[in-house]
Amino acid sequence: MHALELITRKRDGGRLSDEEIAWAIATYTKGGIPEYQMAALLMAIVWQGLDAGERSAWTDAMLHSGDVLDLSSVDRPKVDKHSTGGVGDKISLSLAPLVAACGVAVPMISGRGLAHTGGTLDKLESIPGFRVGLEPDEIPPLLEKNGVVMAAASKTLVPADQKLYALRDATGTVPAIGLITSSIMSKKLAEDLDGLVLDVKVGNGANMADPRAMRELARTMVQVGADHDTPVKALVTEMSQPLGAEVGNANEVAESIAVLRGDGPSDVTELTIALGAEMLLLAGMATDEGSAREQLTAAIGDGTGLEVMERMIEAQDGDPGVVSDPTRLPTAPGTEVLTAQDDGVVTECHARRIGVSAIRLGAGRETKKDRIDPGVGITVHAKVGDRVERGDTLATVHWRDESRLAECLAELEQAWVIGESATPPPLIHERIG
Amino acid sequence: MHALELITRKRDGGRLSDEEIAWAIATYTKGGIPEYQMAALLMAIVWQGLDAGERSAWTDAMLHSGDVLDLSSVDRPKVDKHSTGGVGDKISLSLAPLVAACGVAVPMISGRGLAHTGGTLDKLESIPGFRVGLEPDEIPPLLEKNGVVMAAASKTLVPADQKLYALRDATGTVPAIGLITSSIMSKKLAEDLDGLVLDVKVGNGANMADPRAMRELARTMVQVGADHDTPVKALVTEMSQPLGAEVGNANEVAESIAVLRGDGPSDVTELTIALGAEMLLLAGMATDEGSAREQLTAAIGDGTGLEVMERMIEAQDGDPGVVSDPTRLPTAPGTEVLTAQDDGVVTECHARRIGVSAIRLGAGRETKKDRIDPGVGITVHAKVGDRVERGDTLATVHWRDESRLAECLAELEQAWVIGESATPPPLIHERIG
Repeated sequence: MHALELITRKRDGGRLSDEEIAWAIATYTKGGIPEYQMAALLMAIVWQGLDAGERSAWTDAMLHSGDVLDLSSVDRPKVDKHSTGGVGDKISLSLAPLVAACGVAVPMISGRGLAHTGGTLDKLESIPGFRVGLEPDEIPPLLEKNGVVMAAASKTLVPADQKLYALRDATGTVPAIGLITSSIMSKKLAEDLDGLVLDVKVGNGANMADPRAMRELARTMVQVGADHDTPVKALVTEMSQPLGAEVGNANEVAESIAVLRGDGPSDVTELTIALGAEMLLLAGMATDEGSAREQLTAAIGDGTGLEVMERMIEAQDGDPGVVSDPTRLPTAPGTEVLTAQDDGVVTECHARRIGVSAIRLGAGRETKKDRIDPGVGITVHAKVGDRVERGDTLATVHWRDESRLAECLAELEQAWVIGESATPPPLIHERIG
Repeated sequence: MHALELITRKRDGGRLSDEEIAWAIATYTKGGIPEYQMAALLMAIVWQGLDAGERSAWTDAMLHSGDVLDLSSVDRPKVDKHSTGGVGDKISLSLAPLVAACGVAVPMISGRGLAHTGGTLDKLESIPGFRVGLEPDEIPPLLEKNGVVMAAASKTLVPADQKLYALRDATGTVPAIGLITSSIMSKKLAEDLDGLVLDVKVGNGANMADPRAMRELARTMVQVGADHDTPVKALVTEMSQPLGAEVGNANEVAESIAVLRGDGPSDVTELTIALGAEMLLLAGMATDEGSAREQLTAAIGDGTGLEVMERMIEAQDGDPGVVSDPTRLPTAPGTEVLTAQDDGVVTECHARRIGVSAIRLGAGRETKKDRIDPGVGITVHAKVGDRVERGDTLATVHWRDESRLAECLAELEQAWVIGESATPPPLIHERIG
């Protein structure tokens, strides 16, 4: 087979066979196809797309480019959640321990922040000592013990994706439904799951602006899961304003602890329970949504969710004391407030702008080499539908570096629009699968 | 500027500014943009195209990536011809000396064979001793002396194209009107010309199958020439069957000598004169086509065209004796004939298949490393509209290697279709510019 033949066929709108896709991914991963040919193929795929069969074959080839977790020693049903990414999206931090407290095993392989959105691994690392770099053989015993592991992908897990993702990031070939699907699904299928719940974000804070594309992505991921005998459910959820009040790293961990303590913001708590209910249903731990929600609510009420979070942090060498005393989390030295310029109702609290503001502050990376400052972040005080008066605080900025604060504020000031009236958008738009 | 920003904008259908294009070409040429990013940009251009302004800017950036010939010492008007490539297209070999014999300077920088088509440099090198690798400073004195130079591009002439062309060849990004236009026009504009005539081929033997795309290419090249104050005329000409009878290298040189001797095939002679007339008009050596054709016909009749060819070969270290005695050209040891299986009229004499057959035989390269065998080739005896009887010779194959002969014949047998009636296609379809 020749890479050039595959490129020209895809360029001209043709399809690639399962064998050709398997060959291309395997050969590329071991360095037998140069980056420039793969870049051309990826752009041809962004252009012409991958059909359902090609998407499944591409996912399969990625999945088999490296090791797959063997969780056969874990008795519990294994279910995970994946979010397409948003601003203030700390759901995994409360969700994984809570679902584990209800008897499910959650082998959550997570990612870093991307563009204007935060990453679960970056947030976890704001807990002093927390270690996300687990070896594959550490995962089964931790799952047996606590029911939850939150870790980075090891170098041997889907190495094709690690190589392809870096190339896509550098060549403008991220936004292709087939490539996003196979990137996410290959990593999740490598976790040896019994089921997967997807949180597909729509709105200005999502990673793709077009809501139709995001819904199509949800459907293709459900389909690829079905092709691999792994049931997948997707919730299409709102991401036009941040989730909860906190955007950053340590402050998002603190907010997640609050959710498990029972006093978190209503949207974060509701989405945690809605996604958790889907996970319990997939795991067979509940037969209807109502009883699933009851179990989750109970695990918040009796503190078992919080206990599992504490044990998980301890098991991964983090300071478990942060759970009972969140002031042990890192903080930034300075605070600055942004206030309303008018009386009225918040009609826009722009997720993407707030996400970008947090990156400017040092809560995310502008380039791959940047170090994250775990203590900086933004607290959002007024969201869509909230009535404000001139001078009321819209946001508190937790900052360390003055020039970064200035860059942050320049962006943040544009995030709010005050108007006459607005209704808060619904949190969950659609259930797929 | 960031390459990624240019890639994503072009991918999404946006346009690149003159400054961005100049930056991208200059930075890529000196190694500052990696091949994989340029590959992605090229595929995005194949997808979304370049508009008229982008094409001119791209051409301009390529033109200024290296040296430009300085032909200010040459008194004569400087006009060149470029063909988009065909089978049996040896027109340059007779045209350049003939037009030079009429007082024009022809600084012809030529190319190698590509895909199923032959290349002028490969044909010239079948003349014993002929040297195509001239240094830039050798060109002006040779032009002053003989009015004609036929040479390869030096490494310093449009280096961006040399690098980009290799990348396009390997990444399936050749067929984009804007990229083809700028590749051809940058090299021709670097010749410091007063005018350029294009021979744009249409038909199965052309380099792009779609005749509308070829016509568009002709118009874009005329436009880019106008943007650079260089008048360009294009003839759209037939390439569904080979030009003349000879397909190969040495045999094409011999056929070109015959044209200048006055006994060449009518189609090669006619196209030489038609393109030559356009060149004389652009050079201001004639005011109307009729007088231009008369000058060219006279230069064949009195042998001055042949004399210029002889002087050019001598000046470039070739054996000038081949002109008066073409048997001094290399030949292949074996001959094999292909005969008609039916009585009837030739309805198809498939240029592309005959071109591929010649490559199989060794007259062109299957891979970049292959060496051309200058003596092998195909002589075509029956063309569209010719009446044949069963057993008549359709082609003579001049071969050296038996297994290559077999591969050649397997393809060549499919080139002819014998039917009831057919009219030879017109040689020249359209004049543009």
